[in-house]
Amino acid sequence: MKISELSRTTGVPVASIKYFRRQGLMPAGKATAATLAEYGQEHVQRLRLIKALTTLGGLSIAATRDVLTAVDQAHSADSALGAVSYALPVPVAESPVGDAEREAETGSAAEAEVAALIADMDWQAPSTSPHVEGLTAALRELKRLDADYRPGELAAYAELARSIARLDLDRAAAFGDDPVALAEQAVIVFALSAPVLELLRRLAQEDQVRRRVAGDAVDVDADADTDAAVDADID
Amino acid sequence: MKISELSRTTGVPVASIKYFRRQGLMPAGKATAATLAEYGQEHVQRLRLIKALTTLGGLSIAATRDVLTAVDQAHSADSALGAVSYALPVPVAESPVGDAEREAETGSAAEAEVAALIADMDWQAPSTSPHVEGLTAALRELKRLDADYRPGELAAYAELARSIARLDLDRAAAFGDDPVALAEQAVIVFALSAPVLELLRRLAQEDQVRRRVAGDAVDVDADADTDAAVDADID
Repeated sequence: MKISELSRTTGVPVASIKYFRRQGLMPAGKATAATLAEYGQEHVQRLRLIKALTTLGGLSIAATRDVLTAVDQAHSADSALGAVSYALPVPVAESPVGDAEREAETGSAAEAEVAALIADMDWQAPSTSPHVEGLTAALRELKRLDADYRPGELAAYAELARSIARLDLDRAAAFGDDPVALAEQAVIVFALSAPVLELLRRLAQEDQVRRRVAGDAVDVDADADTDAAVDADID
Repeated sequence: MKISELSRTTGVPVASIKYFRRQGLMPAGKATAATLAEYGQEHVQRLRLIKALTTLGGLSIAATRDVLTAVDQAHSADSALGAVSYALPVPVAESPVGDAEREAETGSAAEAEVAALIADMDWQAPSTSPHVEGLTAALRELKRLDADYRPGELAAYAELARSIARLDLDRAAAFGDDPVALAEQAVIVFALSAPVLELLRRLAQEDQVRRRVAGDAVDVDADADTDAAVDADID
């Protein structure tokens, strides 16, 4: 197909397609004349992925390029997941300004907290992992705001995060063994379901707030009914 | 204290403090002369909150203003939580371009899916809730990418989101009954722990990927050991 049809099919303007190509995010089409190129289904898929990463995923062009490179270089299914996991940007806490002494204190406290959590959870992650560094920086910021987690709270969240990660990996793995296809799926699952999870959490918070305002008891028994309702619906 | 000391205490540059004041994010200090103002502890707290929202929370100046207005207008503890819950920006999926027919189809499918989920979960949220609209838009984007959730998957995530929201509300409620203090705490818990949760999830994903690469069985029994370890550590 020509670039105009590629644009119509994907909903990405021609100028953006040319920009993505110049930025090295997308391979060129097959040249059919000096100023004409032919595009195929692989360009459609690539463009959809780029669009998803830059809009719903909120990634910069540079971050998108890193992720796509990881996708392209993936040789095995598992290494594809690992490469994507490291290429996706992590939320960052701004580097600290202000009281240097207090800073050093909260910094090493946060580091120790993260190391203890990882040991308790039996998580395999080196201290150089971007996720370990990101979590340490975020906890340091919260300490500076005196909004620290109380003992046990972070572990409770971590247990839920483990359950979420299992669902994530199962979703990605369901898409087969081809490394590039799996990496693409991992990008979608890892990057694009983060907003979905956050929205589910916000919805659940809204529900909890409404119940507390109404004076309802927010009891654990409510779960049993809901599980039954969900099961019934899936059938 | 003078503005220079306020700057030193909070680590926020004087120019930024003046900018936040001009943008209506922070009340003026008490004028002590034509060009001098005196700042107090409430300004320190306000600045810390602004800094947290704009850096770790990633909020724009406009979004920060909305949240602070909600905090200031909160009259009861529960209404403070509700106001903050609605004022915080939600992740947005870009408005669709492209195939209008396909669009209408995925749009109504996403709406039906969210409505069914909310009914199944017994969640109290009107269809006009920003969280309902945001979730619908995000699911529509995923459908366009053929990266839909399979039956039951979204409900599984929703159950975990409910558990997370309970932890969130308990954390916020632990900070007492004063509406403004509670609203401030809710801002921190709702907005600033989103990156922490996402980082925990990314860490857990990294662990799962490493185990799968190493060929470890990722079994559920591992949980029992970990829970014991966590309990031991908390004691």
